[in-house]
Amino acid sequence: MHPRFLSLKTRDALVKAEASGLVVPQGLIAHGRGEAFDYVIGERTIPAAYTATMAAAALLLRAERPVISVNGNAAALAGEDIVRLAFTVSASIEVNLFHRTIERERLIARHMKKLGAKEVLGVGSAASKTIGGISSPRAKVDPDGIGKADVVLIPLEDGDRAQALEDEGKKIISIDLNPLSRTSQVASVSIVDNVVRAVPALTEASRKMKELPQSQVEQYVSSFNNKTNLANAIGEIVQYLQGWMKN
Amino acid sequence: MHPRFLSLKTRDALVKAEASGLVVPQGLIAHGRGEAFDYVIGERTIPAAYTATMAAAALLLRAERPVISVNGNAAALAGEDIVRLAFTVSASIEVNLFHRTIERERLIARHMKKLGAKEVLGVGSAASKTIGGISSPRAKVDPDGIGKADVVLIPLEDGDRAQALEDEGKKIISIDLNPLSRTSQVASVSIVDNVVRAVPALTEASRKMKELPQSQVEQYVSSFNNKTNLANAIGEIVQYLQGWMKN
Repeated sequence: MHPRFLSLKTRDALVKAEASGLVVPQGLIAHGRGEAFDYVIGERTIPAAYTATMAAAALLLRAERPVISVNGNAAALAGEDIVRLAFTVSASIEVNLFHRTIERERLIARHMKKLGAKEVLGVGSAASKTIGGISSPRAKVDPDGIGKADVVLIPLEDGDRAQALEDEGKKIISIDLNPLSRTSQVASVSIVDNVVRAVPALTEASRKMKELPQSQVEQYVSSFNNKTNLANAIGEIVQYLQGWMKN
Repeated sequence: MHPRFLSLKTRDALVKAEASGLVVPQGLIAHGRGEAFDYVIGERTIPAAYTATMAAAALLLRAERPVISVNGNAAALAGEDIVRLAFTVSASIEVNLFHRTIERERLIARHMKKLGAKEVLGVGSAASKTIGGISSPRAKVDPDGIGKADVVLIPLEDGDRAQALEDEGKKIISIDLNPLSRTSQVASVSIVDNVVRAVPALTEASRKMKELPQSQVEQYVSSFNNKTNLANAIGEIVQYLQGWMKN
């Protein structure tokens, strides 16, 4: 499949998801920012993203209480892939919105359940715990989910909340096409890739890694340096742009 | 004003413009792409944009029939600035939409007139001329506007139409934050800047240039090389990213 075709298909899916109320208008703008960064990494999974994906799979597999945080864009673009990943790494799914309304929380939960999720945490009053450092109602989490999680995967999260979750001592795995974003900068493992490519890749990596001995899985975490890896991701963009300068 | 504040204010204006029907959901995504590129040029007018703005002002002033093409995003973000520019360089304003409906054409025309435009070309059956190389209804232009224009300013245009207009022998001035976009690549003068900064800057440059002798205005056109200038714009992004790699 041609990458530009996938980009147009994904865009179309998001426009429809806004019409159905799953995604907010601000989510469309955020998606556009992602499209631009995807464009300058060549609309493909770059080597730095592979490296981060291996570290992320290892983190998820050795976690005691891993949680996948889901917002409107993530649900619309990668809902089914997220359900599959949650099953593979035994993670909970929690809805967590920047533009929070009870209607949209319920809509996203229903959407995820239709795609096969057994349970969706964090809906309405279930999000009764407050995490520090960010202003309400974005600070609300489910005490049975993100509240007691040791590893949280946040596809398409905002920087403040990523920082607040790290400050609570949780290991954050981000999926964000912008390697300069605060989310990418503060996460423990930052996957600089499109969510529609990253989540299936993460599931695949986790499946393979399950067959490895624990010590080898550990190796993928201890040998990973997020700062260096992010610099490599930025380097890929620089290379791409320098190619254009010679045209 | 802090650039991030301006970015949030602009984003908010566009979300409201979508709610009112001026902007389509796809316009929000396009705006997000612009936001990302604005971010990697530091949310400021880069030197390459100043150079292109001077060449653009000169082109507009020596044009016989300059036209400013307006779509939903341009009208929502820079409507008043476009009216001011049109007055300064004696240009016509023509509505030209990618996602074309008669309702939205009328809405945009009304919006521009409320902001002071005397006339808005290209609404409905007025767009009776077809330009080659692109599929209908995007190919429709007003024979009294873009149809007979020698210079067309296209803020936020798509690449196919930019190419088609250049193929018709018109000089195209683009305003596009993405220096790699087809629009930027095919235009005669590509201003790599945010439309909310670029249009007022273009008006200011035109005002100053009006006081110069014709030979000096000519100088700004003949000494301008769009390819070199675009490479400089990409170079600015590369420099910005390399700063991050050292962090």
